Amino acid sequence: MPVGFVQIPVGIAGPLLLDDYEYSIPMATTEGCLVASTNRGCKAIYASGGATSRLLKDGMTRAPVVRFGSARRAAELKFFMENPDNLDTLAVVFNRSSRFARLQSVHCSIAGKNLFMRFCCSTGDAMGMNMVSKGVQNVLEYLQNDFPDMDVIGISGNFCSDKKPAAVNWIEGRGKSVVCEAIIKEEVVKKVLKTSISSLVELNMLKNLVGSAVAGTLGGFNAHASNIVSAIFIATGQDPAQNVESSHCITMMEPVNDGKDLHISVTMPSIEVGTVGGGTQLASQSACLNLLGVKGANKESPGSNSRLLATIIAGAVLAGELSLMSAIAAGQLVKSHMKYNRSSKDVSKIAS
Amino acid sequence: MPVGFVQIPVGIAGPLLLDDYEYSIPMATTEGCLVASTNRGCKAIYASGGATSRLLKDGMTRAPVVRFGSARRAAELKFFMENPDNLDTLAVVFNRSSRFARLQSVHCSIAGKNLFMRFCCSTGDAMGMNMVSKGVQNVLEYLQNDFPDMDVIGISGNFCSDKKPAAVNWIEGRGKSVVCEAIIKEEVVKKVLKTSISSLVELNMLKNLVGSAVAGTLGGFNAHASNIVSAIFIATGQDPAQNVESSHCITMMEPVNDGKDLHISVTMPSIEVGTVGGGTQLASQSACLNLLGVKGANKESPGSNSRLLATIIAGAVLAGELSLMSAIAAGQLVKSHMKYNRSSKDVSKIAS
Amino acid sequence: MPVGFVQIPVGIAGPLLLDDYEYSIPMATTEGCLVASTNRGCKAIYASGGATSRLLKDGMTRAPVVRFGSARRAAELKFFMENPDNLDTLAVVFNRSSRFARLQSVHCSIAGKNLFMRFCCSTGDAMGMNMVSKGVQNVLEYLQNDFPDMDVIGISGNFCSDKKPAAVNWIEGRGKSVVCEAIIKEEVVKKVLKTSISSLVELNMLKNLVGSAVAGTLGGFNAHASNIVSAIFIATGQDPAQNVESSHCITMMEPVNDGKDLHISVTMPSIEVGTVGGGTQLASQSACLNLLGVKGANKESPGSNSRLLATIIAGAVLAGELSLMSAIAAGQLVKSHMKYNRSSKDVSKIAS
Amino acid sequence: MPVGFVQIPVGIAGPLLLDDYEYSIPMATTEGCLVASTNRGCKAIYASGGATSRLLKDGMTRAPVVRFGSARRAAELKFFMENPDNLDTLAVVFNRSSRFARLQSVHCSIAGKNLFMRFCCSTGDAMGMNMVSKGVQNVLEYLQNDFPDMDVIGISGNFCSDKKPAAVNWIEGRGKSVVCEAIIKEEVVKKVLKTSISSLVELNMLKNLVGSAVAGTLGGFNAHASNIVSAIFIATGQDPAQNVESSHCITMMEPVNDGKDLHISVTMPSIEVGTVGGGTQLASQSACLNLLGVKGANKESPGSNSRLLATIIAGAVLAGELSLMSAIAAGQLVKSHMKYNRSSKDVSKIAS
Repeated sequence: MPVGFVQIPVGIAGPLLLDDYEYSIPMATTEGCLVASTNRGCKAIYASGGATSRLLKDGMTRAPVVRFGSARRAAELKFFMENPDNLDTLAVVFNRSSRFARLQSVHCSIAGKNLFMRFCCSTGDAMGMNMVSKGVQNVLEYLQNDFPDMDVIGISGNFCSDKKPAAVNWIEGRGKSVVCEAIIKEEVVKKVLKTSISSLVELNMLKNLVGSAVAGTLGGFNAHASNIVSAIFIATGQDPAQNVESSHCITMMEPVNDGKDLHISVTMPSIEVGTVGGGTQLASQSACLNLLGVKGANKESPGSNSRLLATIIAGAVLAGELSLMSAIAAGQLVKSHMKYNRSSKDVSKIAS
Repeated sequence: MPVGFVQIPVGIAGPLLLDDYEYSIPMATTEGCLVASTNRGCKAIYASGGATSRLLKDGMTRAPVVRFGSARRAAELKFFMENPDNLDTLAVVFNRSSRFARLQSVHCSIAGKNLFMRFCCSTGDAMGMNMVSKGVQNVLEYLQNDFPDMDVIGISGNFCSDKKPAAVNWIEGRGKSVVCEAIIKEEVVKKVLKTSISSLVELNMLKNLVGSAVAGTLGGFNAHASNIVSAIFIATGQDPAQNVESSHCITMMEPVNDGKDLHISVTMPSIEVGTVGGGTQLASQSACLNLLGVKGANKESPGSNSRLLATIIAGAVLAGELSLMSAIAAGQLVKSHMKYNRSSKDVSKIAS
Repeated sequence: MPVGFVQIPVGIAGPLLLDDYEYSIPMATTEGCLVASTNRGCKAIYASGGATSRLLKDGMTRAPVVRFGSARRAAELKFFMENPDNLDTLAVVFNRSSRFARLQSVHCSIAGKNLFMRFCCSTGDAMGMNMVSKGVQNVLEYLQNDFPDMDVIGISGNFCSDKKPAAVNWIEGRGKSVVCEAIIKEEVVKKVLKTSISSLVELNMLKNLVGSAVAGTLGGFNAHASNIVSAIFIATGQDPAQNVESSHCITMMEPVNDGKDLHISVTMPSIEVGTVGGGTQLASQSACLNLLGVKGANKESPGSNSRLLATIIAGAVLAGELSLMSAIAAGQLVKSHMKYNRSSKDVSKIAS
Repeated sequence: MPVGFVQIPVGIAGPLLLDDYEYSIPMATTEGCLVASTNRGCKAIYASGGATSRLLKDGMTRAPVVRFGSARRAAELKFFMENPDNLDTLAVVFNRSSRFARLQSVHCSIAGKNLFMRFCCSTGDAMGMNMVSKGVQNVLEYLQNDFPDMDVIGISGNFCSDKKPAAVNWIEGRGKSVVCEAIIKEEVVKKVLKTSISSLVELNMLKNLVGSAVAGTLGGFNAHASNIVSAIFIATGQDPAQNVESSHCITMMEPVNDGKDLHISVTMPSIEVGTVGGGTQLASQSACLNLLGVKGANKESPGSNSRLLATIIAGAVLAGELSLMSAIAAGQLVKSHMKYNRSSKDVSKIAS
């Protein structure tokens, strides 16, 4: 069906030293300065001894909406679904959808006589939307026996919530929840990043916390997580439309060791990635996954490839935040956008 | 600097009949069913006489954060910036950044002694972030004379708000604000979309309005605007990281003509696109813009190419919403994901 | 310490027929038309056979913020807290704070090296903030043994979230989560409410769902829940500052029985009330609780008085929504505000 | 119509030294410790030379929702309303509602073929909801001539947004927008507030900024603004249901003068108050307004009484934030709740 292809330039940032391994980060972007900037962040992290990550949660979600004749009946199904005694039975039905699917929990929310049931399950190395959708389908058919008055309005009722900014993902997570941190030494801040710890800490508070608060953000307490997430997503065959919630991120910068060093962290609750299926099978995307050592399903430890990919993305976001924030603190933002990957002629076109 | 390229398959959906013109919509995506689905929506729109769009606003924004010694002083600058008498002077300074930049307004927001100034300007056919950044830089330098105690903390203070979900974009718009609508005939809903008007209206209320409300969304009152926006963004060389707010959308479905027909609309306040600069200059992306007839700068009417692109995107989102909502209403979602662009072997890989 | 008193007029709305009992609703308000309006809603509910409620959840929360030297350590405490094996031990420590306190769950959220732990517990008939605070204090002291590097920054870290609009309350509930519903007959809509079912359904969609979506609300998908909540809160000695989240509400109106009847519901996830302690002990407030039959601690079934109070509030909100929405649908809003509890002279003062 | 009264104890906090005047703040609350705590904040402010406030905006809003047959038509009315040339005419029609009403602006937002028009006007010393509603009614009648196909769905379409947490109020303001600040000396922090500047700054960042961000707040970047707002609202006859958005607040704490002093500020965009009409006419409430010197309409400078009341509320919130944050920083929160206005027997009831 495809009539052709678009080509997106891929640059490599890194090495990113993360959890004692080195990674070369493939970034597909038409903004050359983005790779250069992330690269500088990687350099600063490397010179400071590397970054550390922790996976906090791993589960894909889908939430159908069903309707009853009364809120009373909707509440009965809610109580049924949330009863721990029933979870095992539901899991058996759900897990038939795939040998990797493992139902973890169901979070039900009522609006009148309508019930939204957010199923959460682990999905091996797949991003998992299809898997969870099939599992949900199984459960809905099963429930129809005991709740014959249940009217399935839609397999997705937006409480999932897929490809929309939603507090439920920000607060409860979707896909992989990751925190990543590094301690950047004072001399690295000065020499590599051309700024100071106090400037960075102050800018982070006023821009990433206060400015985002004033703007009424939802999960956007960062400088440009979306840039790095979408570049790696495209390079590695992820679904770029899921960038919306996958780039939810709060970036923190705090002085440590009596102000001598900078503690920086990114906390990202809903990184939705897989290393099998979808766009990961295309040749160039597959090569990028190979570069990171996370191609395909991990036979020994199902899911660990996709989890590793998520932590690498968080690590790259850490590098990206560090570098852009430094550029802003040093007053370089406008200039850096003019320099890379564009002839002066092109710049004049854009900017004149 | 790029070390290579990733290739994204491009499919063509359409013709989309929009404002009496026909457009073939290039979509870069690894999800084959997305193109097929959007195509079906285009077919339904075509059979119903086409869609209509209106551009509601056109202005790119950038909001630096500056700090004073007191809130009193921050308020003085706020009053100065918002005084209509000063706007002309500020515009002269700002507009030096480009012959296309035209300052429209400055919205100031205070947090204690810190001031966020959201500059909004038209940017011709460029997406305009660089242009507006340079204009802001000009104004900041100019202001330093009268406000020597103004401390520029950052050229971007996140009240812009770029690449983050933020209420300020949802409410005041960023880039192009567009509404697009169509009236779909009953027989088209039945024959092309395989569902009924009442099912669609009900699903739209329970999923796109209520489900999104329950999930605590910000601007995500739709089914999958992000899918269509990101596919066209990648095909036409836009910045896919801006998909975050460019896919803000409220989808409405209302019965009209005594329930015989369906009125569907999408309202999208912050579509950020350009037809010059950035990724639009690459060969394949340039070809996709050409296919739509919006490549490059419009000499006669600067900005009209990028505005047309924005309305086409909204039109394609309309088609995408119509089709996916119909599939969900008809209970086809899981099946359609299994069918396209994947061999049965691939499907088993994903789903087993 | 008090130097005096302010007097707030109390009106009685009702009887509210809820779950087969009749309640006279005390409302403390200076807006006379509010009582009259709620009364009309009660009348419509009564004439239609009454309303039904369901309590969905009951648990008060408090979330301290603690800090570690690294995100890695914060994650370790998170895993410890969320390990089901540890919950029993933590509960024993927590529950020492009161014989009514029963720890239900702890939801941990990380931001870099900082950890927010949202403790949720049942609190008998008390609203429970003090009880849960003391329980949290106990647990923090206990944890200090195993996590000596844990730095308690504050007993409340705003992830609770008390007296602020916050998605975490909207999505996970705080205090009592209640849904209340009624089916209003067509003739009642016509004769008592002076409007039509179709007008109400349409207004509810465009105002309470779409208008609130456009305004970027959080949990405010209703017409005026806050009016009823605050009036009953003040009458019954609740904390009126908690009105902020206690009035989170989504109001749904759907035609049923082939459009002959109207199904109306209110879903309110975070009603924070108690029938002992605080302002409930004052004479007039105590009398109002007595009027509802929920004064003091329920000896036989601890907590059932406060839970009943929550459902009554939801029922009164149902009545209030029904009546105001009808007034708006019938175009009466401006007029009704002019009529009650004000002499014509007063009106001229307000309005001239 | 009222059947009786509830009595709320009133305590006096202060003197609050604000903009060189001293105010005694009446607070109606059943939480005795709230007055004591606010009083301590006032004392710290006094000892540091007082607080300063700035009124940033003054305008009440109401947003009807109207519907057309097409989005195209809705857009036409939007363009008409937002055309500066038409504002004068609209203002003449609008302002007939009252000699104090002055239309300032109309902000239109579209959702498909539905249009929400947010009228903003100054309202003298009245809170102004009735005044603005009447003005809106006038304009709607006027528009019906030129837009006969306009269907008025409701005089309020929730884009106002009244008594609901909504981003539109947070970003554009409603009622009075106020910023208030003070510089607290190091020795005052130590002796009066029993904590340190660094502890306060850190707690403010982690609780009021980060914790609120993690909780997904909307405009709730503070510790307990709602407590102070509701206490003064009840004392002075304001509408306590408007506490929801009137307590939107971002509290900032920054070290100044090389860390020797603390700069604290509260920014509150939507304080909705009046000094005439509604509950302000009742005897005790009227006395409380008198105590503040803001009773009734200001003849010389209409609106200045209500504006002064708004700044006093912001000043009291400043005091309240300062004191509670200090208590939390010093680890005193649980204890202070046990001490005031309750016998030990009462405490045991609440807490046992």
